[in-house]
Amino acid sequence: MSLKVVVIGGGSSYTPEIVEGMIRRHNSFPVTDIVLVDIEAGKEKLEVVGQLAARMIEAAGKAIRLSWTLDRKKALENADFVSTQIRVGGLKARALDERIPLSHGYIGQETNGAGGAFKAFRTIPVLMDIAKDIHNICPDAWMINFTNPAGMVTEALQKHAMHKKVIGVCNIPYNMRHSVAEILDVDPANVRIEFVGMNHFVFGKNIFVKGVNRTAEVLEKLASDNLDYSPANIVNIGWSKTFIEATKLLPSPYHEYYFHTKEVLQKDIKSFEEHGTRAEVVQQLEESLFDLYRNPDLRMKPKELEQRGGAYYSDVACSLMDSIYNDKGDIQTVNTRNNGAISDFADESVIEANCVISKDGPKPLAIGKLPYQVKGAILQMKAFEELVIQAAITGNYEDAYLAFIMNPLIADERDSKVLLDELLAAHQAYLPQFQK
Amino acid sequence: MSLKVVVIGGGSSYTPEIVEGMIRRHNSFPVTDIVLVDIEAGKEKLEVVGQLAARMIEAAGKAIRLSWTLDRKKALENADFVSTQIRVGGLKARALDERIPLSHGYIGQETNGAGGAFKAFRTIPVLMDIAKDIHNICPDAWMINFTNPAGMVTEALQKHAMHKKVIGVCNIPYNMRHSVAEILDVDPANVRIEFVGMNHFVFGKNIFVKGVNRTAEVLEKLASDNLDYSPANIVNIGWSKTFIEATKLLPSPYHEYYFHTKEVLQKDIKSFEEHGTRAEVVQQLEESLFDLYRNPDLRMKPKELEQRGGAYYSDVACSLMDSIYNDKGDIQTVNTRNNGAISDFADESVIEANCVISKDGPKPLAIGKLPYQVKGAILQMKAFEELVIQAAITGNYEDAYLAFIMNPLIADERDSKVLLDELLAAHQAYLPQFQK
Amino acid sequence: MSLKVVVIGGGSSYTPEIVEGMIRRHNSFPVTDIVLVDIEAGKEKLEVVGQLAARMIEAAGKAIRLSWTLDRKKALENADFVSTQIRVGGLKARALDERIPLSHGYIGQETNGAGGAFKAFRTIPVLMDIAKDIHNICPDAWMINFTNPAGMVTEALQKHAMHKKVIGVCNIPYNMRHSVAEILDVDPANVRIEFVGMNHFVFGKNIFVKGVNRTAEVLEKLASDNLDYSPANIVNIGWSKTFIEATKLLPSPYHEYYFHTKEVLQKDIKSFEEHGTRAEVVQQLEESLFDLYRNPDLRMKPKELEQRGGAYYSDVACSLMDSIYNDKGDIQTVNTRNNGAISDFADESVIEANCVISKDGPKPLAIGKLPYQVKGAILQMKAFEELVIQAAITGNYEDAYLAFIMNPLIADERDSKVLLDELLAAHQAYLPQFQK
Amino acid sequence: MSLKVVVIGGGSSYTPEIVEGMIRRHNSFPVTDIVLVDIEAGKEKLEVVGQLAARMIEAAGKAIRLSWTLDRKKALENADFVSTQIRVGGLKARALDERIPLSHGYIGQETNGAGGAFKAFRTIPVLMDIAKDIHNICPDAWMINFTNPAGMVTEALQKHAMHKKVIGVCNIPYNMRHSVAEILDVDPANVRIEFVGMNHFVFGKNIFVKGVNRTAEVLEKLASDNLDYSPANIVNIGWSKTFIEATKLLPSPYHEYYFHTKEVLQKDIKSFEEHGTRAEVVQQLEESLFDLYRNPDLRMKPKELEQRGGAYYSDVACSLMDSIYNDKGDIQTVNTRNNGAISDFADESVIEANCVISKDGPKPLAIGKLPYQVKGAILQMKAFEELVIQAAITGNYEDAYLAFIMNPLIADERDSKVLLDELLAAHQAYLPQFQK
Repeated sequence: MSLKVVVIGGGSSYTPEIVEGMIRRHNSFPVTDIVLVDIEAGKEKLEVVGQLAARMIEAAGKAIRLSWTLDRKKALENADFVSTQIRVGGLKARALDERIPLSHGYIGQETNGAGGAFKAFRTIPVLMDIAKDIHNICPDAWMINFTNPAGMVTEALQKHAMHKKVIGVCNIPYNMRHSVAEILDVDPANVRIEFVGMNHFVFGKNIFVKGVNRTAEVLEKLASDNLDYSPANIVNIGWSKTFIEATKLLPSPYHEYYFHTKEVLQKDIKSFEEHGTRAEVVQQLEESLFDLYRNPDLRMKPKELEQRGGAYYSDVACSLMDSIYNDKGDIQTVNTRNNGAISDFADESVIEANCVISKDGPKPLAIGKLPYQVKGAILQMKAFEELVIQAAITGNYEDAYLAFIMNPLIADERDSKVLLDELLAAHQAYLPQFQK
Repeated sequence: MSLKVVVIGGGSSYTPEIVEGMIRRHNSFPVTDIVLVDIEAGKEKLEVVGQLAARMIEAAGKAIRLSWTLDRKKALENADFVSTQIRVGGLKARALDERIPLSHGYIGQETNGAGGAFKAFRTIPVLMDIAKDIHNICPDAWMINFTNPAGMVTEALQKHAMHKKVIGVCNIPYNMRHSVAEILDVDPANVRIEFVGMNHFVFGKNIFVKGVNRTAEVLEKLASDNLDYSPANIVNIGWSKTFIEATKLLPSPYHEYYFHTKEVLQKDIKSFEEHGTRAEVVQQLEESLFDLYRNPDLRMKPKELEQRGGAYYSDVACSLMDSIYNDKGDIQTVNTRNNGAISDFADESVIEANCVISKDGPKPLAIGKLPYQVKGAILQMKAFEELVIQAAITGNYEDAYLAFIMNPLIADERDSKVLLDELLAAHQAYLPQFQK
Repeated sequence: MSLKVVVIGGGSSYTPEIVEGMIRRHNSFPVTDIVLVDIEAGKEKLEVVGQLAARMIEAAGKAIRLSWTLDRKKALENADFVSTQIRVGGLKARALDERIPLSHGYIGQETNGAGGAFKAFRTIPVLMDIAKDIHNICPDAWMINFTNPAGMVTEALQKHAMHKKVIGVCNIPYNMRHSVAEILDVDPANVRIEFVGMNHFVFGKNIFVKGVNRTAEVLEKLASDNLDYSPANIVNIGWSKTFIEATKLLPSPYHEYYFHTKEVLQKDIKSFEEHGTRAEVVQQLEESLFDLYRNPDLRMKPKELEQRGGAYYSDVACSLMDSIYNDKGDIQTVNTRNNGAISDFADESVIEANCVISKDGPKPLAIGKLPYQVKGAILQMKAFEELVIQAAITGNYEDAYLAFIMNPLIADERDSKVLLDELLAAHQAYLPQFQK
Repeated sequence: MSLKVVVIGGGSSYTPEIVEGMIRRHNSFPVTDIVLVDIEAGKEKLEVVGQLAARMIEAAGKAIRLSWTLDRKKALENADFVSTQIRVGGLKARALDERIPLSHGYIGQETNGAGGAFKAFRTIPVLMDIAKDIHNICPDAWMINFTNPAGMVTEALQKHAMHKKVIGVCNIPYNMRHSVAEILDVDPANVRIEFVGMNHFVFGKNIFVKGVNRTAEVLEKLASDNLDYSPANIVNIGWSKTFIEATKLLPSPYHEYYFHTKEVLQKDIKSFEEHGTRAEVVQQLEESLFDLYRNPDLRMKPKELEQRGGAYYSDVACSLMDSIYNDKGDIQTVNTRNNGAISDFADESVIEANCVISKDGPKPLAIGKLPYQVKGAILQMKAFEELVIQAAITGNYEDAYLAFIMNPLIADERDSKVLLDELLAAHQAYLPQFQK
């Protein structure tokens, strides 16, 4: 029996992680075939990563057939799982997402604000195409997306693609769980957080260790010690005691963009002046990584990859595929169709939620009403997401503008137009839907 | 460390089953104390059951302290779990619930129609009292109710009692799962049914065996072979091919009351003429059981108990306590707060649903919208339940009457009054809330 | 300036009423053109009615151009209002809707139960065609439908037709208002009833006379005097004091089918044995009416028309057209899109509600939650309606079957199939959508 | 027969307007008694206003008994309408609401942002007291509130006061209607705007003139000519073409605070530096007005009152009382219980909506879903309002803090605390509920 995983965006620097994940889990999740797929522009990187992955598999002594190709359709034949980790326009496009808003005094970030909207505009049409191929070629395959903005991308696919077996993953819930474990000095495997919200806008509501509710303790520590629990690539100001006591929720690192806007902006501008955009920093990191990858003696994922920012994404994805394949019924936090779990949202909204994972995919646990403490912010963010998705699909200028004025990081009606026009011009090559 | 289970209605003929369940699970669920509680009227039965339970524990060689008492408050001290299996008014009251409607040409049944409403009217105030004691004496204890009508009772407690750690259990989902296993000739442990609806009005939506969706196969067999999968105490007419093909759902045995009303009524009348009410049949069964229980050589649950009708109730309850105690995170089907799981219902409605069971109790998996096929019937039944609960709490005659006219088994506005008045008079002793 | 009204089903015996209505309102609603349209099978009746209408207009001395035709498309050119009052299959089909259910012991009625569903199955496709013509030929015209079942027909058109300017009218709210006026001995013009529900399943919630709430008084009289306030063609058993006191609502005459089912059935069977079906009685009435209409000396609507049953339908329609034309902003009770008015319903459901009538059409007043007293029955009926509409559009056998088992007047799963099959066979000629 | 109107806050400079309104409408709304009520601190102003009002009534020759008093309870006896126009803490408190946020770089405004929240905190408890008196003394009276923030105040009373006959009024919808009339050069009486949203956050969705939809024309003019349609006391930047084209909605002047935040803030700071706060400007205006009022020859409302800002408030209130009294059934835009009108909101939310006004009060027309264009902003603002109301009632510090971080004009989690603490200290005397 075959078990085939196709990695789209296989030339990504993250690929060694997902390959390592599959090697490590080979006993329970016996992959027989891995195909790495990329586009012409990524050909050289694909070759480097492919060679490294081949060495890794060989070193591990696992019976996995590995190949790499630019022929996506061919690769998809008989696939059981398709992971998608792409970057439309590459880091150059990301630099524009960061630079242009910053130059007007707005936060420039690849998954939030104006930059996040444009990443969605560029990404959604490409993933719609991939989903279409999957639907035609391997309709039973699960599509596991970790391309950002993962929540909006998943909602766009759930709403507009024929292929419905799509799950979005992110490492933030994973990181939050590990940070809590660190705070409490317990094994992360024993920590369960009730998450509520959407990708990059998720809150932790209750925290259990071996089933015992220890939320109050975690919040108290957070409020008093101002502990640092942010992943590497997230600005970290720290939360005030009042914020924690009033919300009684565990914020995600991305909430800093919304509740520490001025300080984050100052930090970002300073950092930009010193190091350029985050995209440019990452660009250098990437180059160093690829230098390592090219080393023919390297036969495992290098430690340096973890500094890259999105660490554990792939681990989260492997874990998910494993549970689906084995009908495990364990709980994982993924992006999936709401289906009533949050009663304030439409059934067809996508949420980031604790789900029971079985062969039939993720089923979110019911959450009920949004916490009154932050209901307003979550509802507004979901409305913004809906406008972004609509604009990404239709290429309608007015929808894109509405998304901008409905985003709390932009809102200003004149600047919205300025940012929008400049970003549309800058990204023109990757936004065919807007060229009508 | 102690682990104490209090069994209210301990003199019930079912008690040997729950005791056996705790003996069998003693490794994983190491009960240290069992206290059987009953009321004055059940004193003699409590003694008989207590003695049998003591012999069972001794024979099993388990370190469990067992006692029995009429002092409920004392029993509840330090309890971890409280199971409730009571019958207010005893089988005599049940006989009236069955006899009075039948005498007017209406279905007389202890959990459906007029009889079901009256069982709720008698039961809810008593369980409210018990919940109040638990709240005051052992507020951290889980109350596991298997007194019928289990769904309405749980909703009444969730809405009106201070103690919120209440879970309702029923053996119907268990039986449906086992019947499906039989139909497919597989191990019941591998069968998972997505349930939707309420207690005694639950449908199976998707059927998985080891994660593979085999719903179509089960429905086809049901439609073609007219397989019998009803538990002993449920009338069984069998479902037509058209019904199964149109609903694409697995009905519960209780749905026969609603979709085979005429035939069930005829059968019931015939059976009544031949054997008296079901209550009277059960009365005899109970007497035979107690004759067996009195035998000092009996040191285990007798086989005959299984014919009693409610078989596996206690097994379901033990399984639930085990998973809570061990924070297992497995999926069980229980009656709990909707919390958004079914988007057509209020968050505070109680549903019978698949739940992840942890130390923090059951969390239902999100279900989304009710199946369009049977939405109307489910919504009406829930509205009926709400009226029954309101009447049970307030003792308001008009609310009780509204429940009757909103019940599809009654509906007739004049007969509703006739039945209601006759039942109110007959059960007067157990309905203090209506005596105002 | 022209003001053109097209009457589809112009050969109906009701037409003199609508013509009279337009004559009477000619000062405020200055119709310039009336075109009566019918189908080949109704040609002779159309001629008779046309001639009568011409005499009426002449006698009244109004400057209205009148014509009659079988060419619907031509007639629709430049129409401002299109009224639709058709009977697909004629009274013969109605007789079958009544006879077949009755023969199996079920209520046979043209707008309720199995008969009502089949009237919808026959009518909806034809009205969809008419709406399509309107959309293409006179897209600004308002379609005023008084073909039964008026609520389901309006919902079908609102959901599935391109033409959205559709309003359903019925004389029941009008009659209820007049009956209340009679009970209180006041001018009907001063009575306002807050209606809640759907066509033929509407309840009166609050009753105001000149703005003063007199609900209690009306209900008290209804409960004590058992006043008769049913229109001629509705069975009348009368409501019990308990029903009125518990529901605190003014029932519609059609609710008798649901809460007096047994008695209505007995009456219907008796009446059938004595006079044949209602369709057959109406057939004779119609023939007598046409005999009158043929009299060249008749120059006005004959008194006898009022006995026909649907009296005031046309008055309601004229009143509605008048208010739209004049942007009156008064309140009328019509069938229109819910749009949130009843919060338990989807926005796209059609309800029978008090609406402000302006040039822009009807806007329902917000009602909020359904009354808890009858919520279950209303929700079930709406779910039944949705299934009927779905079956009428798709011609799907299983949807039709689901509608039957979800209807409280049928419900039995085996009889549902028997009735459905027999009715499908009997009406085959008028159900092209089911012949696939 | 008597018709008594009590004006609470009768010493307000607006009072001559409401008195004039009652004089002008005396034929249709024949007030027999007016009592002006104020508190000790307003005694002198009450005397001045009372004398002026007496002269106005005398000059008009109307049979209205007028009196003024500090005894609220006595005044309320037999009242039919109670209007409330109070300013807890006076203009001094308003100056603090404006000054403190401005000093930290945040918009300081009496009904928006931090200042608006504090006006609510001060006002709601006092109006709760008044509502309690009304409930006890004149329970049939309608309470017509035009104290700001009128929407939140009305929602607080609807949710927490026993007296439910409360309506909130504002002049913004009136002004928007008049501005549209000016834009189109038509009689305002013929303009109807479909409003959606809440007080000071209301949008115009469709604009009709004599029933003809002229929305596109108005929006086009707004977009092209950048017409000024703001009332005197609202900052006016003007809306961009893109904003109008994308939202397809008529914004309210208050939306400038949210979509032109930076510019409004700059203007406010500049204006503050030049003239002090708006409160201080108004203070001078008020003094000039009272100088006029004191003139014993003044026998009518002086023209200068219109510059005061809240012009037409009283006209709106009189118009409302007139329609209630006469059961007119016309449409007015007021703040009332949602009751399902906006389906995204809870039934118990208060909205500013078009309502049919009858003796039974206002009934909103159903609106359905919020416009997708601005849904996010409206939902967030409503969530903010809910937190403000909760904090105003409970005096809970954390609720107040949550309101601040959920307000798009504040949001920053650290500055929220700074502003909150400073405002709490400044207004301590008027915030008994927070002193616990």
